[in-house]
Amino acid sequence: MRDTGLLGRLIQHLRCLPGVGPKTAQRMAFHLLQKDREGARALAETLLQAIDRIGQCSRCRTLTEKPLCDICADPARDSSLVCIVENPSDVWIIEQATVFKGLYFVLHGRLSPLDGIGPGELGLDQLERQLATSDIKELVLATNSTVEGEATAFFIGELARKHHVQASRIAHGVPMGGELEFIDSGTLLHAFNGRRTI
Amino acid sequence: MRDTGLLGRLIQHLRCLPGVGPKTAQRMAFHLLQKDREGARALAETLLQAIDRIGQCSRCRTLTEKPLCDICADPARDSSLVCIVENPSDVWIIEQATVFKGLYFVLHGRLSPLDGIGPGELGLDQLERQLATSDIKELVLATNSTVEGEATAFFIGELARKHHVQASRIAHGVPMGGELEFIDSGTLLHAFNGRRTI
Repeated sequence: MRDTGLLGRLIQHLRCLPGVGPKTAQRMAFHLLQKDREGARALAETLLQAIDRIGQCSRCRTLTEKPLCDICADPARDSSLVCIVENPSDVWIIEQATVFKGLYFVLHGRLSPLDGIGPGELGLDQLERQLATSDIKELVLATNSTVEGEATAFFIGELARKHHVQASRIAHGVPMGGELEFIDSGTLLHAFNGRRTI
Repeated sequence: MRDTGLLGRLIQHLRCLPGVGPKTAQRMAFHLLQKDREGARALAETLLQAIDRIGQCSRCRTLTEKPLCDICADPARDSSLVCIVENPSDVWIIEQATVFKGLYFVLHGRLSPLDGIGPGELGLDQLERQLATSDIKELVLATNSTVEGEATAFFIGELARKHHVQASRIAHGVPMGGELEFIDSGTLLHAFNGRRTI
């Protein structure tokens, strides 16, 4: 009975969810079948719809079911300001946390030559066309603060300079509410180097 | 963009999974759509099949896609020994951990008069018919060690006695490898009361 049968297959497939191991998958399967078949059906149907219909925005490459995402299609957004992020989830995070009113451009990764990820894979040719043809005045580089994220930010900064567009990097330093005692030395060094006169 | 649209609905529906909050649901949705559409499709399709086809075994009430589950249908299992458990997941746990070779009977809950769960909801009429008509010699009561689980075990024990069938309760005590220092007093009291001569 254990790993064969429909129930075993369901448990197996639930493990494709990030962070879900065999025990959690088992708990999820039993929960859905015993307590929430309605919810499970809605989940499965929405998931199928999402796989079929959600693609990339033709302008900013974020995930959307439309040709142009809601942000790019919104005339109230400031199209002269473009924030560069690594993942579509970063767009959500920034939208939820900040009052940024510009547009986005999603790289779907970062430069990583060893993994075969170059400018082409990140859509930088598309970004360059936008830099050349549209009214972009500033790129806000919000790639992650990893070695590869920094390298990607630097590369795109150079691209912006080539097209006489201003580039800025989001600030890195001590998180709000963070105590110095618990901050790693790299962040602290960054915070000191980036200090501002008050 | 935030909570509307297909992506927002997918994130919402993922929250019907146990232990999945808004952040995890968001991470799952982006992971499936960006990295594992194949897996997501397989998951959705298997989930729909499971909802449609998985029901209860006519004999032991566990979850199965067949009229009779694999355990009940296996002629090598000892049908004179029946283990009573609260949930179908308990069957899996016991199958994975022990060498129990009897059959099971799944209550899908425990006696809880305040919540309107009586003997009828737990299928005890069906169990009583089995006690009266089949060759059951022993019921192993493996309901959880909660107040309600104990009450349920006691109730079913009385049922067994009425039909001259032996009833046993699984042992409760100090877990294997457990240190006394970290055991709660209720378990320790139980372990002392249930001590055995060696």
